[in-house]
Amino acid sequence: MLFSETAPEAWASRYGSHPTQSLEGLDAFLRHRSVRRFAPVSISEDTVAGLMAAAQSASTSSNLQLWSAISVQEPSRRAAMAELCADQKQVKDAAWFFAFCADHYRLSMAAQKAGVDPKGLDYAEFGIMAIIDVALAAERFACAAEAQGYGICYIGALRNQPAEVERLLELPHGTFGAFGMCLGVPADSETARIKPRLKQSQVWFRETYDADVSVDEYELRMKPTYERRGMSTSWASHSGIRADGEHMTGRDVLLDYLHKQGFFLR
Amino acid sequence: MLFSETAPEAWASRYGSHPTQSLEGLDAFLRHRSVRRFAPVSISEDTVAGLMAAAQSASTSSNLQLWSAISVQEPSRRAAMAELCADQKQVKDAAWFFAFCADHYRLSMAAQKAGVDPKGLDYAEFGIMAIIDVALAAERFACAAEAQGYGICYIGALRNQPAEVERLLELPHGTFGAFGMCLGVPADSETARIKPRLKQSQVWFRETYDADVSVDEYELRMKPTYERRGMSTSWASHSGIRADGEHMTGRDVLLDYLHKQGFFLR
Repeated sequence: MLFSETAPEAWASRYGSHPTQSLEGLDAFLRHRSVRRFAPVSISEDTVAGLMAAAQSASTSSNLQLWSAISVQEPSRRAAMAELCADQKQVKDAAWFFAFCADHYRLSMAAQKAGVDPKGLDYAEFGIMAIIDVALAAERFACAAEAQGYGICYIGALRNQPAEVERLLELPHGTFGAFGMCLGVPADSETARIKPRLKQSQVWFRETYDADVSVDEYELRMKPTYERRGMSTSWASHSGIRADGEHMTGRDVLLDYLHKQGFFLR
Repeated sequence: MLFSETAPEAWASRYGSHPTQSLEGLDAFLRHRSVRRFAPVSISEDTVAGLMAAAQSASTSSNLQLWSAISVQEPSRRAAMAELCADQKQVKDAAWFFAFCADHYRLSMAAQKAGVDPKGLDYAEFGIMAIIDVALAAERFACAAEAQGYGICYIGALRNQPAEVERLLELPHGTFGAFGMCLGVPADSETARIKPRLKQSQVWFRETYDADVSVDEYELRMKPTYERRGMSTSWASHSGIRADGEHMTGRDVLLDYLHKQGFFLR
């Protein structure tokens, strides 16, 4: 296994300090990083079926199971998919690529067969349920994969050109590609480290929201990460620019697309 | 540990058939069920900090970390929270309760301090990123908790009365309570079983979307679950009714609330 940090080592990388408690059993959960360099090694259908069983074991709101995953393995379709995903190399190279979709279609069909008009699916609430369902499923898949030594990378760029993704994967009304996921064996050349995160007290509040929004301490810990990539920036500017509305890589029109697919209409 | 099914046993419960492949290492990922009966046993801050480190180790879009968790432990606030969450007993009884929030506030503050106007946060894309971020974090937390023998239950009812949740937790603009989570030691009296899911081929498609929407086989497997609860229904009708727009438990006005908080505006 390429990555083998213990949980205390991973904690130190996340927070810049050593844990005082035991973190037994948490190694695989703490050592996640996005893997973008994959070895040319295949992963069997049987292995993926096990991971998909993990995905299906995740919680799903009222057992509605509002998600689907489409594996894209055929070389020309995979190449087209990589192109739609901002030409990210790992989409091409991964042993498996999955488009994880928010899915109202299956429920809609089942309801109609049972004589129920599923006219509530266009409420924002049902959009949120589907996005949560698909994310929970994918993350249980990811945790299970990483526990077995595989590497994964989420691909948000699946939302860059949603209508083209829809055509490529023949997605019906009531579905949309929420994100992609690459799965593979990390290449020996993969050097991705465990990335520092905000202090735990900055995301976990007690009783009421109490944001410590000072990121000076975090900037110090993030500095080496940016430097290694030759970037002279800070987390606040680098992240802030992402939120300025000018760097949307096509996703500024996502709401129109979601409306077209029947999501978030009311 | 109360629940100790092996992965092959869990697979059989999910799919009604025995796996033909090895599922080594997947036990804890496959044996999830929502736990609603908790033993009156506390879980230490240190243990929760370990699980929160797992949550923070989940992928987050561009490292933006668009989520927060608020633990609600003070008895009167917990009671008020349970009331807001449809009076669900497990919210009152769990050793810990967390409100997991989609969070643009922290990024917004950091961006402004860095001289960037985060005016893009009102795009649907940023709402989706935050919902995915918070769900990935929560599910890694859940997987880590279950791997250690604890039980969890997601609480979608946190969205029933979002404005009241906002007041109770003093949530700022740019945040909303996405879902709750109960964490505790399952009571010996907890009888929740591993719930059957749709056939794997109904959620995992190859190359293109190809929904097998026939749920007859699934209905046979779900029948005992409904019968044990004294319900004479089917998955299709039971689920369909959820989608008819008449059973929204207050969530029919969620989009207005999201708009007020600065989400999904364009």
